[in-house]
Amino acid sequence: MFQVNDNYQKLPGSYLFSTIGKKVSAFSAANPDKKVIRLGIGDVTQPIAPAIIAAMHKAVDEMSKAETFHGYAPDLGYDFLRNAIVEHDYRARGCDISADEIFVSDGAKSDSGNIQELFDVHNRIAVCDPVYPVYVDSNVMAGRTGTYDAATERWSDVIYMPCTMENDFVPDFPKETPDMIYLCLPNNPTGTTITKAQLQEWVDYANKAGAVIIYDAAYEAYISEPDVAHSIYECEGARTCAIELKSFSKNAGFTGVRLGYAVVPKDLKCGEVSLNAMWARRHGTKFNGAPYIVQRAGEAVYSAEGKAQLKEQVAYYMKNASVIKAGLKEAGYTVFGGVNAPYIWLKTPAGMTSWEFFDHLLEHANVVGTPGSGFGPSGEGYFRLTAFGSYENTVAAIERIKAL
Amino acid sequence: MFQVNDNYQKLPGSYLFSTIGKKVSAFSAANPDKKVIRLGIGDVTQPIAPAIIAAMHKAVDEMSKAETFHGYAPDLGYDFLRNAIVEHDYRARGCDISADEIFVSDGAKSDSGNIQELFDVHNRIAVCDPVYPVYVDSNVMAGRTGTYDAATERWSDVIYMPCTMENDFVPDFPKETPDMIYLCLPNNPTGTTITKAQLQEWVDYANKAGAVIIYDAAYEAYISEPDVAHSIYECEGARTCAIELKSFSKNAGFTGVRLGYAVVPKDLKCGEVSLNAMWARRHGTKFNGAPYIVQRAGEAVYSAEGKAQLKEQVAYYMKNASVIKAGLKEAGYTVFGGVNAPYIWLKTPAGMTSWEFFDHLLEHANVVGTPGSGFGPSGEGYFRLTAFGSYENTVAAIERIKAL
Repeated sequence: MFQVNDNYQKLPGSYLFSTIGKKVSAFSAANPDKKVIRLGIGDVTQPIAPAIIAAMHKAVDEMSKAETFHGYAPDLGYDFLRNAIVEHDYRARGCDISADEIFVSDGAKSDSGNIQELFDVHNRIAVCDPVYPVYVDSNVMAGRTGTYDAATERWSDVIYMPCTMENDFVPDFPKETPDMIYLCLPNNPTGTTITKAQLQEWVDYANKAGAVIIYDAAYEAYISEPDVAHSIYECEGARTCAIELKSFSKNAGFTGVRLGYAVVPKDLKCGEVSLNAMWARRHGTKFNGAPYIVQRAGEAVYSAEGKAQLKEQVAYYMKNASVIKAGLKEAGYTVFGGVNAPYIWLKTPAGMTSWEFFDHLLEHANVVGTPGSGFGPSGEGYFRLTAFGSYENTVAAIERIKAL
Repeated sequence: MFQVNDNYQKLPGSYLFSTIGKKVSAFSAANPDKKVIRLGIGDVTQPIAPAIIAAMHKAVDEMSKAETFHGYAPDLGYDFLRNAIVEHDYRARGCDISADEIFVSDGAKSDSGNIQELFDVHNRIAVCDPVYPVYVDSNVMAGRTGTYDAATERWSDVIYMPCTMENDFVPDFPKETPDMIYLCLPNNPTGTTITKAQLQEWVDYANKAGAVIIYDAAYEAYISEPDVAHSIYECEGARTCAIELKSFSKNAGFTGVRLGYAVVPKDLKCGEVSLNAMWARRHGTKFNGAPYIVQRAGEAVYSAEGKAQLKEQVAYYMKNASVIKAGLKEAGYTVFGGVNAPYIWLKTPAGMTSWEFFDHLLEHANVVGTPGSGFGPSGEGYFRLTAFGSYENTVAAIERIKAL
C-alpha cells in the first residue's frame, strides 16, 4: 500500500494568501454592496508596458509560421534573454556573472520553492522572521524543519532571525550556525532593507560558516537609496556562497506573465560538487523552459523603450507607497518600509493581533491587507499594505483608514 | 558547512536529450555542409493553429489595458480552462471528473517530475522499460531508487517491467508489489499501447495492491484504434487509484508554449489523506500558475475551430508516421508503433547497439533519432524515430535511410 509524504501533513493551515482569499470572498458574498479595496497580496495592477506588449505580439506571430515557430526552448533559457540579463542586471553594476550562470524559470516563487532540493535534508535553514512563507513551507515539505510547536508557531529545526522595530529590521547573525540562509532584501513583508556594507557582513559570515545564502532580490527595482546593493554579487566573495533569485513580477508587472531567473555561480561548490551543474540537471529533468513568447517579453524589459516605461511604472507604485506612508503616519500609526520597496509595514493598534486588525480593516474600511503574523511569529502585531493598487484605490483606502 | 543532496550525484551521465543535443552540435560543427534532419527529440514542427494564435493575440491585448489586465492566476488554473478540459476531455467520454480535480500546470514534464513529491520516500516505483526518462530520474533525485548498477543499468529499488517485441510491448504485472506505477500510454518511446480491457486489468491490479497509477496520457490525441482508452478514467475504479497527466505539447504543438494539467481525483486517498488536497497545497506553495495568455491559448484548443485545425495537424504527423513505417519496412527493418502514437520504434540491425546505430545514422544518413537504450535497459537494440518533422524532411530522411 502506497504511503504519502508525511511532511505535508505537518503544515499548519493553508497557504497564507489562500486563507486571505477565502476570507475576502466570504465578506464580499455577505456584503455585495461594499466595494473592497485590495492592498493585500503583492499583485500588481498596472498593465504590461507597450514595449513588452509589442514584443509579445511579435513572438505570437512568429509562432504562427513554420519558419519562425519555436518548440522546446533551451533548458536553461534562450541566449537572447540570458545575455540581456547579464548585461543589464550584472555587468552594468560591475558584477562578475556570466550567461551560463543564469537559469531562466517560470517565476521566483517556483525557484524559491525548488532551490532547497539541491541541499541535504539534514541541513539547517535560517530565515528572517517575518518573511515570505514559501521558504519555510517548501522546507517543511522536504522534511528539513523538524516538528512544529503550535504555541510558539515555530519549527524545532528552523533558525529564526527576528526582524522587528527593536533591531531596525536588521537580522542579527544567529547563535546556531545555519547551512542555508534565506535573505529577502528589500524584504517582503517589512519593506525594509539593509545597506551594502551590512550585506557584505552577511557574505563574509556565510563564507566563514560554510553556509549558502539564498538571496531573493524580487524587489530590487524599488531600491531608491544609493548605499543599498541591487545584487548580492556587488559584495566581494558572494560568488562562493550565494544564489540569487530574481523575478519579473514586480519590476515589469509579470505576475500573470510568469518569468524569473536564478543565478548559481560556478564558484559555488560543496567539495568538488558544483551547484551550478546540479541546478542545470534539475532544470533539464523537471522543467521544460519558460514559454518563448514570455522570454521575448523578458528581453523587451531590457530594451531602451521598455526600461523607460518600467521606470515610470515603478515610480507610479512608489508614489502610492508615499501616499500610504504619509496617510498612516497622519492617522497616528507607526510605519516602516516604503522607501526601497513597495510595501508598508505598520504596527497594529495597541491590543490588536495581526488577524484582529485584518478583520477590523476588512469589516470597517473594506480594505484588505496582510496580517504580519502570517509571515512568521515575529510578524505578530504588524500588518502589511502594498503599493501595488491603482493610485485612486490607494488614496481611497487611506482615506477610509484615516476615517476609522 | 552545507551539504548537497547526494542523490543527484547518483544520476549516471546527463539527461538523454542533452547528450543527443551535444552529439549533434559536434557533428554539425565538424560537417557544416551536411544538412542534418532531426527525427530525434519529440519536438513538433508545425506552427500553432490559427484559432490559438488569435486567442493569444487577444489575451496579449487584454494584458495591455488596466481594465482587462490579469495578474496572478488562480493557483490551480482559470475556470474557463478547467471547465473546457472537463467538458471535452472527460464528460464527452463519459468520465466522471470535475473541475476541482484538474490542476493546470506549465507542462507534463514538470508534473511528471514533481508528482513523486506527494509520496513517501520509501515507496517502491514500477516503470515500463523502456520509458520516458523523467519518471526514474526524478525519483533518483528524491532518493527513492536505491543504488545504481552500471553493469545492468538498473536501480536496485526500481521495479522494471520490460516491454519488448517478445511480449508485444504489453507489461506484465510485476512479481514484487509496487506502490507507484508509472504508465505512459500510448507509450513514449515505443509508440505502442494497450487496449482498454488491458488497462482495466491494471486499474483492478492497482486497486487490489493499494498502488497508485501515474498515467501519462501525453499522446492521447494520436489514438486511432477504437478499443484504446483515451483516459484512464474510462476504466472502472480508476478514481481511487489513478492520477492522469496531460500535455498540450503533442496535440496542439505547445512544446514552446508550455501548458499541461494533472487530474487528481478526490477519491484518491491514503487513509484519510487526500492526494487532491496535497497537490493543491504543492501548487499553492511552489508554483504560481501558468501564464494567462497561455491558459487562453489552451481554451482555444477546445473551440470548434481549434479542434478542427488540430485534427488536421495530428493527421499531418500521422501521415509522416505512415511514411516512416512503410519506408523502414521496405528497407527491411522490423518496426513497431506509429498507429496510435507519433513514434516509430525499430530493431537496430543485427549486432548494433542503440548508440552505435545512432552514430551510424547521424554520420551516414545525417538523420538524428533517439537510441532506445536511453529510455531504459530493455530499450537496448531498439531505436526511436518521431513523426514530428515536416513531411518533406520526413520523406527525405527515409530516402536516406533506405539508401544506406
